[in-house]
Amino acid sequence: MSYMDAASGVGLHPVARQALIASLEEGWADPARPHREGRRARMLLDAARETTAEAVGCRPDELTFTTSGTQALHTAVASTLAGRRRTGNALVVSAVEHSAVLHAAQTHEAAGGEVRQVAVDRTGRASPDAYAAALEGPVALACLQSANHEVGTEQPVGEVAEVCAERGVPLLVDAAQSLAWGPVAGGWSVLAGSAHKWGGPPGVGLLVVRKGTRFAVPGPADERESGRAPGFENIPAIVAAAASLRAVRAEADAEAARLRGLVDRIRARVPELVPDAEVVGDPVRRLPHVVTFSCLYVDGEALLHALDREGFSVSSGSSCTSSTLTPSHVLRAMGVLSEGNVRVSLPAGTPQGELERDVERFLAVLPGAVRDVRERLGAPVRGHTPRVDGDAGSRAAGLTVDALGKLCPVPVIELAKVIGDVPVGGVVTVLADDEAARLDIPAWCEMRGHAFLGAEGTAFRVRRSA
Amino acid sequence: MSYMDAASGVGLHPVARQALIASLEEGWADPARPHREGRRARMLLDAARETTAEAVGCRPDELTFTTSGTQALHTAVASTLAGRRRTGNALVVSAVEHSAVLHAAQTHEAAGGEVRQVAVDRTGRASPDAYAAALEGPVALACLQSANHEVGTEQPVGEVAEVCAERGVPLLVDAAQSLAWGPVAGGWSVLAGSAHKWGGPPGVGLLVVRKGTRFAVPGPADERESGRAPGFENIPAIVAAAASLRAVRAEADAEAARLRGLVDRIRARVPELVPDAEVVGDPVRRLPHVVTFSCLYVDGEALLHALDREGFSVSSGSSCTSSTLTPSHVLRAMGVLSEGNVRVSLPAGTPQGELERDVERFLAVLPGAVRDVRERLGAPVRGHTPRVDGDAGSRAAGLTVDALGKLCPVPVIELAKVIGDVPVGGVVTVLADDEAARLDIPAWCEMRGHAFLGAEGTAFRVRRSA
Repeated sequence: MSYMDAASGVGLHPVARQALIASLEEGWADPARPHREGRRARMLLDAARETTAEAVGCRPDELTFTTSGTQALHTAVASTLAGRRRTGNALVVSAVEHSAVLHAAQTHEAAGGEVRQVAVDRTGRASPDAYAAALEGPVALACLQSANHEVGTEQPVGEVAEVCAERGVPLLVDAAQSLAWGPVAGGWSVLAGSAHKWGGPPGVGLLVVRKGTRFAVPGPADERESGRAPGFENIPAIVAAAASLRAVRAEADAEAARLRGLVDRIRARVPELVPDAEVVGDPVRRLPHVVTFSCLYVDGEALLHALDREGFSVSSGSSCTSSTLTPSHVLRAMGVLSEGNVRVSLPAGTPQGELERDVERFLAVLPGAVRDVRERLGAPVRGHTPRVDGDAGSRAAGLTVDALGKLCPVPVIELAKVIGDVPVGGVVTVLADDEAARLDIPAWCEMRGHAFLGAEGTAFRVRRSA
Repeated sequence: MSYMDAASGVGLHPVARQALIASLEEGWADPARPHREGRRARMLLDAARETTAEAVGCRPDELTFTTSGTQALHTAVASTLAGRRRTGNALVVSAVEHSAVLHAAQTHEAAGGEVRQVAVDRTGRASPDAYAAALEGPVALACLQSANHEVGTEQPVGEVAEVCAERGVPLLVDAAQSLAWGPVAGGWSVLAGSAHKWGGPPGVGLLVVRKGTRFAVPGPADERESGRAPGFENIPAIVAAAASLRAVRAEADAEAARLRGLVDRIRARVPELVPDAEVVGDPVRRLPHVVTFSCLYVDGEALLHALDREGFSVSSGSSCTSSTLTPSHVLRAMGVLSEGNVRVSLPAGTPQGELERDVERFLAVLPGAVRDVRERLGAPVRGHTPRVDGDAGSRAAGLTVDALGKLCPVPVIELAKVIGDVPVGGVVTVLADDEAARLDIPAWCEMRGHAFLGAEGTAFRVRRSA
């Protein structure tokens, strides 16, 4: 069994496990009570807050423990917007934020607020200039992740923080993916994190609000956690989260270096081993442990199951893996292929020999798994596209393919099968109503060098180039 | 060390501890992922949901795990109000609900909603008739706890549910204090609970929404837990909570019987052992493990510290134990004495011999602890009130005591010291600005048989009766 989905969550770090079990004995009481069990719980909570604040690079009284990273982000967005209501109601987010931020943005929009999305380039990176342009007029809050959760691309948080500071706009940083590797530099105002991404237990998030940031929690609150996270504190889990963060930070540089080596190996070898695979995300400014690629003519869910059968637990941004049928908003925003998408995220702390064997075995198994899925779907084999000549060519100059009701990647496969049936300069129209076609047909054109002429409703027009 | 604050929270049940440690190995992955670690986590979550639903008496798909009982209550109130927005905007709550419900009510009121408080009698019980009266006109939601967290009084939930059903109003039951002892009977619509009250770990709350109840979660949501509790599920804690609930339920009847015996002993003996102590809450329809009493002329915080030094961890609804300086809203609503308030709540699962020794030692230590606090405050000793005769009487017929700036219980002590200085029928005016005086001066009058004539601003007027 090879678990390679660390970006979704990792098992408990041994240090966290020890801390959790010990503090179940010591930290179960209500820290608001003045009796000795309560005081002991309070002391553990205070110590965990100090440890965590040191790792984050903030004051202990700026740090609140929430019940998840999602909760931290929801509270952060809503409270900063409420605190700055008089300044403006525009919220600026990158197009590749975590869904927790985008859901909070939808809530803001539904309540009459304005949301501005900052586009990203093909590597998934949002530019400081794009943020500067989006910050025109009265803006309440800007959000930017420290690194992307699907493709690993690091965002220019420090530069965007400067742009925000110049305009007096607070910056909320979703640091969930990067906090294990180091503190977030730069002048951010609010920060969120999630312990189960760094080997802490589930049930612990971080919400850091810099002194001087206007922050008004809109819902009902109580006196716990500065009024920012109502409910009885989960002290054993908080203690374990703090212990784990300190432990993973102590190993972070060495771990980053060795995982980066393995990730670079996957990045280089996948396109060699798998025809029509595209590695996505910034090649250099990236998380050390995440690598993502997409495979043309592949159903992501089928590939995930094939890899699971071989003992590999990975993740996918393809439509098929979540209950919604739309492809990942991240891949869409990047404009890259979403078919057959696989995210490999290596867990820190695994012995090097084991991890290296796993990666090699993954690279050995992947080409066959992709081939099997393609064969089952009847995908065209590269180099075997039938060429058109004479009569057939002129006959098929205006060919239309009906793929209505067919799910990704079938519309692209149908297109690939017939492109050779029109002459160079001829046009194929694909009728497709699967959401992913909107992304994958242009991506396919770019990969194959054909011209995407545009879409009208469910009709996608492609001109054969060579 | 004797921990007698079970109503605040109890340590982990041995079964929960075992389940937690086992599921840390098995249940740390993201249950939304299709790989085997994710599927394993999903199976554990599903099994925990079935176990818990069975104990609650609901369908598994009606039950959501939240991150705390407080979170469950906040979500329940906000979502039911939002779901029934078109029906009306009145929210009916008893005056003795948990602060989580009252905070949610304040939020509703601040947003322009209407809140109606149902009064309780001196035992803390809200009557079905009072609910019926409060349900006039378009009401969105009624809330009633299954039993009171401070004084243990059970509420007539079944009858109130009937009253609500007749009027088509959903009833939200806060079952945090009683769920360890049994399911909540009757036709409630929404129910909330908290695992660390039944020996589960902190970080797990329950939110049950009966099919057919209009429920619209207002904030940002995700696909987890039916969209009612955003954020990564804390599966190890959920599994432990479910295991613990089943375990405590198996022992509930036997535990209830023996704890009730010890509680009855405290209820009977405290007034015998401590002069001017008042046991509060319903004597019969009550939680088996909770007993609460107040002691005249005693500073609750000082008494708590004295008991803590003797090794007893108990709680208090007196002002002084929370960071706010107002006395418990529960005691205030009941109209009982709030001075020197102590809540004893016995932990289930403690061996009988040990618990019995603890209770006897508590009863042995309490009188001295109360006496010490009273002596330090200079409280009058009963039976030694100086009697007035001749000149002194007529001289003091209109006496005024200035206790402005003095905290509870000093204003009452000052009153008690001088009441003998006026003749029978004479009036003492106490000037006091401590919030607790508003409750404790009338309560003292009732205990002593003097007539409370009313308050005007900070002036409280008392007529000596005997």
